[in-house]
Amino acid sequence: MLPNKMLEETLNKKVSILLKDNTILEGTLSGFDEYMNMVLSDVEENGENVSRKVGTVIVRGSNVVRIVQK
Amino acid sequence: MLPNKMLEETLNKKVSILLKDNTILEGTLSGFDEYMNMVLSDVEENGENVSRKVGTVIVRGSNVVRIVQK
Amino acid sequence: MLPNKMLEETLNKKVSILLKDNTILEGTLSGFDEYMNMVLSDVEENGENVSRKVGTVIVRGSNVVRIVQK
Amino acid sequence: MLPNKMLEETLNKKVSILLKDNTILEGTLSGFDEYMNMVLSDVEENGENVSRKVGTVIVRGSNVVRIVQK
Amino acid sequence: MLPNKMLEETLNKKVSILLKDNTILEGTLSGFDEYMNMVLSDVEENGENVSRKVGTVIVRGSNVVRIVQK
Amino acid sequence: MLPNKMLEETLNKKVSILLKDNTILEGTLSGFDEYMNMVLSDVEENGENVSRKVGTVIVRGSNVVRIVQK
Amino acid sequence: MLPNKMLEETLNKKVSILLKDNTILEGTLSGFDEYMNMVLSDVEENGENVSRKVGTVIVRGSNVVRIVQK
Repeated sequence: MLPNKMLEETLNKKVSILLKDNTILEGTLSGFDEYMNMVLSDVEENGENVSRKVGTVIVRGSNVVRIVQK
Repeated sequence: MLPNKMLEETLNKKVSILLKDNTILEGTLSGFDEYMNMVLSDVEENGENVSRKVGTVIVRGSNVVRIVQK
Repeated sequence: MLPNKMLEETLNKKVSILLKDNTILEGTLSGFDEYMNMVLSDVEENGENVSRKVGTVIVRGSNVVRIVQK
Repeated sequence: MLPNKMLEETLNKKVSILLKDNTILEGTLSGFDEYMNMVLSDVEENGENVSRKVGTVIVRGSNVVRIVQK
Repeated sequence: MLPNKMLEETLNKKVSILLKDNTILEGTLSGFDEYMNMVLSDVEENGENVSRKVGTVIVRGSNVVRIVQK
Repeated sequence: MLPNKMLEETLNKKVSILLKDNTILEGTLSGFDEYMNMVLSDVEENGENVSRKVGTVIVRGSNVVRIVQK
Repeated sequence: MLPNKMLEETLNKKVSILLKDNTILEGTLSGFDEYMNMVLSDVEENGENVSRKVGTVIVRGSNVVRIVQK
């Protein structure tokens, strides 16, 4: 299964996204494009020491390490 | 919803943009292009130790980590 | 043998993938594309100090260092 | 307003440009291209500990973080 | 002699490949493509402190520093 | 004035080029291309602690931060 | 003189190549392509603390900082 196809099947599902700066974003995948830019809703952002609700987030794909389905 | 479409809906709204150097820019999204280069107005720039008003800012997209709607 | 051809032969087999942040992902290669974006299933993620099961993972190819067949 | 359009309106005006190495260049924007390569004149270069006049400067766009209108 | 031509002549020969993370992979070059993605067989992976046999390896070209013929 | 146009006008003149590794190359600009790859002649290379004459130098554009006319 | 033209004139001559990891490769330039991938022969590799003969080397252009004619 192609990564793009997999992302399509993940739409509207909960994901956990690891960014290059080690932040983890947990939320619902609302959209994505061919660069792996993504729109997430109901996001909780988990950094080294802090965790907070941040609503809707647009992530630039170049920062994404990996996406895990929750 | 495609990231680009989401950015379009965010035009003229308040955003908080995290850059790779950990600076956070808070302001109104006045424009953007396909590289996520952005124009922000009425910006407050929040670095590690300092915070200051900087008016209008053009951000090079390659430095953007994520955009949060305020 | 072309790298792409080799990846094709590795489909549905166990792999160990080293990422740039030194994480190792072990799982079954379910898909990949021309950027080496990959879909892995039944993944165990092994970081510096932690190891955990994470199910299905989409990896952004730009983070991949090398892939070893298990 | 597109970032490129904004840069056009900034031509011949004073700008402050932050580079990835934390240097700040202050001068007049004399030109730019689609990569955000820029020509600045009457530049003052402000590094960590030093500040000096350097006349005309060509900046490679890949080093630019953000541009502030003065 | 073009680098690509040289790689072609190196097919099925022993190479030592230095990666950006300072790992050295020693093995037989079984394939490569235009991005310098490579397939190596009978690989010994030599990191800072460890050395081990890892069989067949697919290397993402963006991590390669240089290739030495053995 | 476009950056490329400015570089053209700088041909055969003295420049000071800052590289990403903080090295400064001072010499005469003998040529350049669209990637800002450059040929410099009569170069003095100034690193952190050392300074030396190195004759003709070809610089890969991706390492260039900025170019100052002397 | 274009950088590519300069490289052509440097073919079969001795060069000293600085890589991003601070390694210096000294050898004869046997070939190159448009990405500044290069083939060097009779190479001496000089790292921080070590120096050794390594024969023929293929260098990935993305690691090259600058090339000096010897």
